[in-house]
Formats: sequence, C-alpha cells, structure tokens
Amino acid sequence: MKSVHIVTTIAELRAEISRWRGKGDSIGLVPTMGALHEGHLSLMRQTKNRCARTIASIFVNPAQFAPHEDFDRYPRTLESDREKLSGTDVDLIFAPSVAEMYPQGFASRIEVGGPSQGLETEFRPHFFAGVATVVAKLLIAAMPDFAIFGEKDYQQLLVIRRLTADLGLPIEIGGGAIVREVDGLAMSSRNAYLNPEQRKIAGRLNRILGDAAHRARSQNAVAAQEEHARSELLCAGFDSVDYVAIRDAATLEKIETVARDARILAAVKVGGTRLIDNMAV
Amino acid sequence: MKSVHIVTTIAELRAEISRWRGKGDSIGLVPTMGALHEGHLSLMRQTKNRCARTIASIFVNPAQFAPHEDFDRYPRTLESDREKLSGTDVDLIFAPSVAEMYPQGFASRIEVGGPSQGLETEFRPHFFAGVATVVAKLLIAAMPDFAIFGEKDYQQLLVIRRLTADLGLPIEIGGGAIVREVDGLAMSSRNAYLNPEQRKIAGRLNRILGDAAHRARSQNAVAAQEEHARSELLCAGFDSVDYVAIRDAATLEKIETVARDARILAAVKVGGTRLIDNMAV
Repeated sequence: MKSVHIVTTIAELRAEISRWRGKGDSIGLVPTMGALHEGHLSLMRQTKNRCARTIASIFVNPAQFAPHEDFDRYPRTLESDREKLSGTDVDLIFAPSVAEMYPQGFASRIEVGGPSQGLETEFRPHFFAGVATVVAKLLIAAMPDFAIFGEKDYQQLLVIRRLTADLGLPIEIGGGAIVREVDGLAMSSRNAYLNPEQRKIAGRLNRILGDAAHRARSQNAVAAQEEHARSELLCAGFDSVDYVAIRDAATLEKIETVARDARILAAVKVGGTRLIDNMAV
Repeated sequence: MKSVHIVTTIAELRAEISRWRGKGDSIGLVPTMGALHEGHLSLMRQTKNRCARTIASIFVNPAQFAPHEDFDRYPRTLESDREKLSGTDVDLIFAPSVAEMYPQGFASRIEVGGPSQGLETEFRPHFFAGVATVVAKLLIAAMPDFAIFGEKDYQQLLVIRRLTADLGLPIEIGGGAIVREVDGLAMSSRNAYLNPEQRKIAGRLNRILGDAAHRARSQNAVAAQEEHARSELLCAGFDSVDYVAIRDAATLEKIETVARDARILAAVKVGGTRLIDNMAV
C-alpha cells in the first residue's frame, strides 16, 4: 500500500493542484484537525465520489481554542492518520505547521454573524472567528470545487456556508451525515478522552436528543422538550449541560413551534470532556 | 472611441476573466469608488504596463462609511467615469450594486489588526473592517495577478497588504504614488466638496507636511515636529486636525527618532470636508 503524499506548505499544495487543474481534474477538500475516525473517512469517500482529486487537510488550529481549552492535549496522530488515508482514495494530505498558516505579523480575523450567534458562541465566544479564519485560508489555498464538513459540528457547517457565500468563494460546501458508534455516540476525536464509565454515559446523549426530537415533533412543543431533555441529560449522568436547543435548521434562529425544518442541538460535559451532538427534528 | 464594457455581477466578471485566462492573459485590478480623477487614471496606466488586461472596479462601499459620514453625498458619476476610462486601456469596468456585494443575509466582517491600529481607526473605528471586507470580496471575485491602491490612503494600502498576505491570496499588491494638483493638493474625489476659499486652505496641507518631514529628518525630531505641524495646520486655516503623525513607514508603529524609513501622515478638516495626505520623511 502506497503512503499518501504529504505537503506542508501552501506553495507545494498549489503546485500539486495546478498540475491536476492542468489535466482538467476537479478538486475536493476535506478540512480536518486529524485524529481521523470513520466520520472523517466517510467525508473523504463522499468527496471522492464527486471530484477527481481529494485532498485532506490536517491542522489543529490554535485560533479556535480558548486558553483554558484542550489545544495542548488535542490528539495529534499524523503518522496513523496517514496510514488510515493510505487505504483510501485520498490523493494528498496538506499538513501545514502553525507558522505556515499564521506567519509572523499575522493580524486578520474573520467574524461571521448570522448562524454563529448563540449556542456554541455563548460558551466558546472566539470559536467561530477562529474557525472562519482558518477555513477561509484553507479554501483560498486549495480553491477546490467542493469542500465538505461533518454535520456533527452543525452550527460550524452553517457558519462556513455563510462565510463562503459572503466572501463569494466559488466553492460548494457539502455536509456529511454524522457517523455514530454502535450505541449511537457521534464519532469524535474527543471521545478518546473518555474513561469507560464516562463513555457509557456519553452513549446516552444521542438517545435523549432523539427522544426529545420525536416528542417535540409529535407534540409540537419546543421549550418544554428542551427543558425536559436538559433534566434527562443530568439524570443520565452528564455533569453539566451547556445547552440543549431546538432551532430553525437553516438559520439556527429560535422557534416556538416545529413548523419548518428544525434541528435539536446540544453540548454537554462528562468529566472534563465536552461533547456536542445534533439531529433533525 | 469605443465605450468600455461594464459588467455588474460577479458571475459576468468571472466569465470575462475566464475567457482572458484561457488565452493566457494576466489580469490587473484597480479597485475604486468612482468619481475618477488623474490619480485613479495613473493607477490604471501602471496596471496596464504590467498586465495584459486591466479591470477597474467602481463601488461606493457602504460598509466603510459611518452613519454620520458622507456615503449619501459621495459623488457617483458612473457615466462620466466610463467616458474617462474609454480614453484609456482599461478593458472592463466592474460596477456592482450594493445588493450584489452584500446580498440578503450577508453577515461577515474581516478585521485586520497590525497596521490598522491608530491614526484613521481612532477617528473612523469601523473603516478598515469595511475596507478589508469589500477588498477581500473584490480580490476573490477577480482573483487578479496584480491589484493596485493609491498611496494617498497609505494606511489602507498597508492594511490591504496585510490582509492579502494573511488570507494567502496569491495577488501582488502595488501602491501608486500620490498624484497632486499644481499647488500640491493630493487628488481626491472629496476635493469636489471644497468651495474656493476652502480649496485654497487645502493646498497648504501638503506643504506643511513636506516642511515637517524635512525638519524631522534633518533634526531627527519626531514629537516636536508633529506638534509644530499641528500648530501650523491650525494657523493655515484648517478647522481641526484629527492627527499628524510621523511613523515607521512599514508598520505605522510609533517611533521616537527617524532612524528607519518613516512616513508623515495627517488627517484634517476644512469646513465639513475631511482630507488626508502623507509623504515619505
């Protein structure tokens, strides 16, 4: 099995892409922070189905972590990530250093309003500016035809769609369905932080959200089901609930009844680990 | 004389550029707010000397005006601008509507730190975010090889260079020397606001800055010459002085002595009109 080629600079990335463009190949990009799991691999496959060439980027972006968050201990597993991708149709890994993405004197930040308001932003105020800035840089560096992001970070997906439209980047942004473990826990690189007891509790998040979504739809009740789900999460063993919210699926605006497409989203903590999940209502 | 072709949408702009790229033509962009004068035309000529194709954009950008500023009365002279450009080698005018640049739901803003700090920002706090956002959109829309901005807006030029480097846009940013009237007044679309008396006072700005630059260099004095120039501007009839500052020419950082390349920059008011100017020390 041939190892996937890795490039670490934007110049090398563009040189490879330019060669492919010269042959008329379409380009797909899957931005990741590495520590790849089946959720990421499903994004790679969806991209390969649409584009002649698939690029995976691997970059743990310091700008989207607050000082008290897990930037330092976030798993960095480039060699095993590369092995995982060598079994796929991924053509190239772009794994830049922090200095390549944020060189000396770097001073820009992209703020996206709209879907970034509330939910994650209430608990991670600088998160989406960090995400938007790095994603804009990755999209501009590769200028793919298509880029895909997992729906597990649903609010992030909407923010990136808004960003891409606002900047006028000629790139289609796809969303990949959440890939789940056997008990329904959404796959996440942060699941590696969980001990066996916490892991068992974590598996209850998706079921509680699923039940709440079902009840919200059948009873057309939003606020009551949000409140009910919050209690259930605490009873199920989660240490705290940052939010559990039923929102308009397109804008994340607050809704009172489930008239249009809605989405239930939650962020919880178990031990020191913060987990998010969401699903259609 | 054939009229220059005008397009009003990003899609049309890209279609034209794509045709030219297909022939191997290089592309230059001159972003303007219209009300074109000899300063703009000199930017067009410099672009034409470097690129096979020159595009002028004309867009009065609401995002860079504060509510109390002159957005409503800023001169809009598209037909006469087009006539002026029809006598030049400009190949295309891009003149989008506000709705084309900021469609329904638009929610993004690019903040550039570094050179944007102080000076203009102290008096126009939202100015550079408005400039950076629209310039990023124009650069992404045209993706030229070269774009040029006048040195009259010297701080803006440094902010745009920072922005372009930070986003990794593969575009060279040129700066065009200030074009001046016979008495040395920097050409500006806002000079049209001046009555004859104010126009006479306005002509003194560049001479006072030139004298201050000369003295700062020969006496190696910064703060004293800034203070001296401020007094002279008020004596010369300007109604107020927002700032007059001698700064590092590359970073706009404060300096105490003129050891490296320095720049003197000023913003003043005469009547209701705000004028800026700058020159090398």
